[in-house]
Amino acid sequence: MTDELRSWADGPTRDAIVSFVERVAGDGADAVPEAERIAVFDNDGTLWTEKPMPTQLAYIVEQWKAQVEADPSLADRQPYRAAATGDYGWLGGAVDKHYEGDDSDLKVLIGALVGVTAGMSVDDYAASVAEFYERAKHLTLGTPYADAVYRPMVELLRYLEAHGFTVYIVSGGERDFMRPMTQEYYGIPPERVVGSALGLAYDEDTHEVRYAAGLDFFDDGPEKPVRIWSRIGRRPLIAGGNSNGDMAMLDFTRKGDGLALLVHHDDESGRGDAPYDKGAEKALAEASDRGYTVVSVGRDWSTVFVDSAAG
Amino acid sequence: MTDELRSWADGPTRDAIVSFVERVAGDGADAVPEAERIAVFDNDGTLWTEKPMPTQLAYIVEQWKAQVEADPSLADRQPYRAAATGDYGWLGGAVDKHYEGDDSDLKVLIGALVGVTAGMSVDDYAASVAEFYERAKHLTLGTPYADAVYRPMVELLRYLEAHGFTVYIVSGGERDFMRPMTQEYYGIPPERVVGSALGLAYDEDTHEVRYAAGLDFFDDGPEKPVRIWSRIGRRPLIAGGNSNGDMAMLDFTRKGDGLALLVHHDDESGRGDAPYDKGAEKALAEASDRGYTVVSVGRDWSTVFVDSAAG
Repeated sequence: MTDELRSWADGPTRDAIVSFVERVAGDGADAVPEAERIAVFDNDGTLWTEKPMPTQLAYIVEQWKAQVEADPSLADRQPYRAAATGDYGWLGGAVDKHYEGDDSDLKVLIGALVGVTAGMSVDDYAASVAEFYERAKHLTLGTPYADAVYRPMVELLRYLEAHGFTVYIVSGGERDFMRPMTQEYYGIPPERVVGSALGLAYDEDTHEVRYAAGLDFFDDGPEKPVRIWSRIGRRPLIAGGNSNGDMAMLDFTRKGDGLALLVHHDDESGRGDAPYDKGAEKALAEASDRGYTVVSVGRDWSTVFVDSAAG
Repeated sequence: MTDELRSWADGPTRDAIVSFVERVAGDGADAVPEAERIAVFDNDGTLWTEKPMPTQLAYIVEQWKAQVEADPSLADRQPYRAAATGDYGWLGGAVDKHYEGDDSDLKVLIGALVGVTAGMSVDDYAASVAEFYERAKHLTLGTPYADAVYRPMVELLRYLEAHGFTVYIVSGGERDFMRPMTQEYYGIPPERVVGSALGLAYDEDTHEVRYAAGLDFFDDGPEKPVRIWSRIGRRPLIAGGNSNGDMAMLDFTRKGDGLALLVHHDDESGRGDAPYDKGAEKALAEASDRGYTVVSVGRDWSTVFVDSAAG
């Protein structure tokens, strides 16, 4: 069955994954019933690249640009000025601040999304996001976003499913921005996508669910185990993440004697995945003590990105 | 395949269900892809009896009794006095108030649960609830709670699954009070149980998720479509309920050209399901205008309760 992990280099990381999965999915003393084989994965930086900025930000920038075109006076202030002028340095700096201080950064991004979606029906937003994925190109790879997905991780999802696991995404990214692509890119249906959530309200007149003008919750750090329990009602056996914000989810999984994977972006070979530790310093420093299995992009992945056209 | 609906009497209600399901699960113009065949059902009064009081209240009364035993001074005030003295009239009256005025009634019940669960881990609560279901007897039927389940509805769940539907519970009852029994009683796993939710917090020291001291949301009325979208990310094709609090969920489903079932407790034959309209007056009065298919317990169900001992 490990043919399914063909983009994983031979070595201790791949061995650790295979040995854990064969143990819990086998019929020995450590076997876990299929219904309890839950695996959870962060999205940005874990299943696909989050550099030079999370895809969601690229989408919001487009919306801000359109708002400036409709109302040029907006161009006098941020973030509209940066959006209108393509000042990705300013936008990327806003992301970096997240990693240098508190957890408020992605909140700001999602907060900006709030202004775009307030009053919109969930169906209209899904259509707008689907159209973006259909058309937009990744800023540095120049490919469709479908090709910004990590091939070894998609292989891992299929490998886990072949061993009776049910896989969920548990991301700080906004839930309904992920749902229009997760089935096609990852084979994960919308009901298994957990993410940060915009407030919602039911419109009794039109029988539509619409976005409210605020954030419901930000799914990062200690919120991740809370949202896993809310959605699934089980403790995961396997979790994968890549940043400090994933540590609570990884620890929650370990408590159940699980497998906790931490993707380390350390590839210097120029295969298109920019190396960085920012936002993952604590997780990397404590990985050994906490029992995380570190996945080295440079050493453990023989191929990095999927090639959707070749698929 | 309609052998699976053997506790449903021949007639227009059963015909409406079969004809709708065969239409969307067939290969004609109205066919719906299997992944989009979502069905949602209320729990109390829809899948099992909610009389003389919702099961959750019976559980809480046990907890209050134990609290009074530990601290007799509590017996001076309600609801502890009613719990300690077995004053089900007072408790039932509290439920009736819900139907006569605002929607705050079940909130009070769940609010009382908050005092019982605050600080408890989700695992400990699940164990306590599972022990209750194992041991407790229904107050009027005298049977295990497993036998307070409506046989025709369980047949309907299996019938829908046989036609490619995925079934969720969407209840005003507290989610984690339902999860320990839904697999065994209804064949529905914990990840497909949507209900009112107690606040949760992650305990970084013990790696446990614990209940906070408040309610997160009350899953009734217009909150039901909101929670359906949050959890599932799709508009249901079929919904079933029995009260005014289910109308928004039924309407949300109808908008998608679905089947909206409204269980009407009108059985005068003494088969153990007490007749009542309270809390469903508006839904019944507007059923025809809103396109609900009314399910008459008296006429449409040839058998009412499951007999778990008979297998």
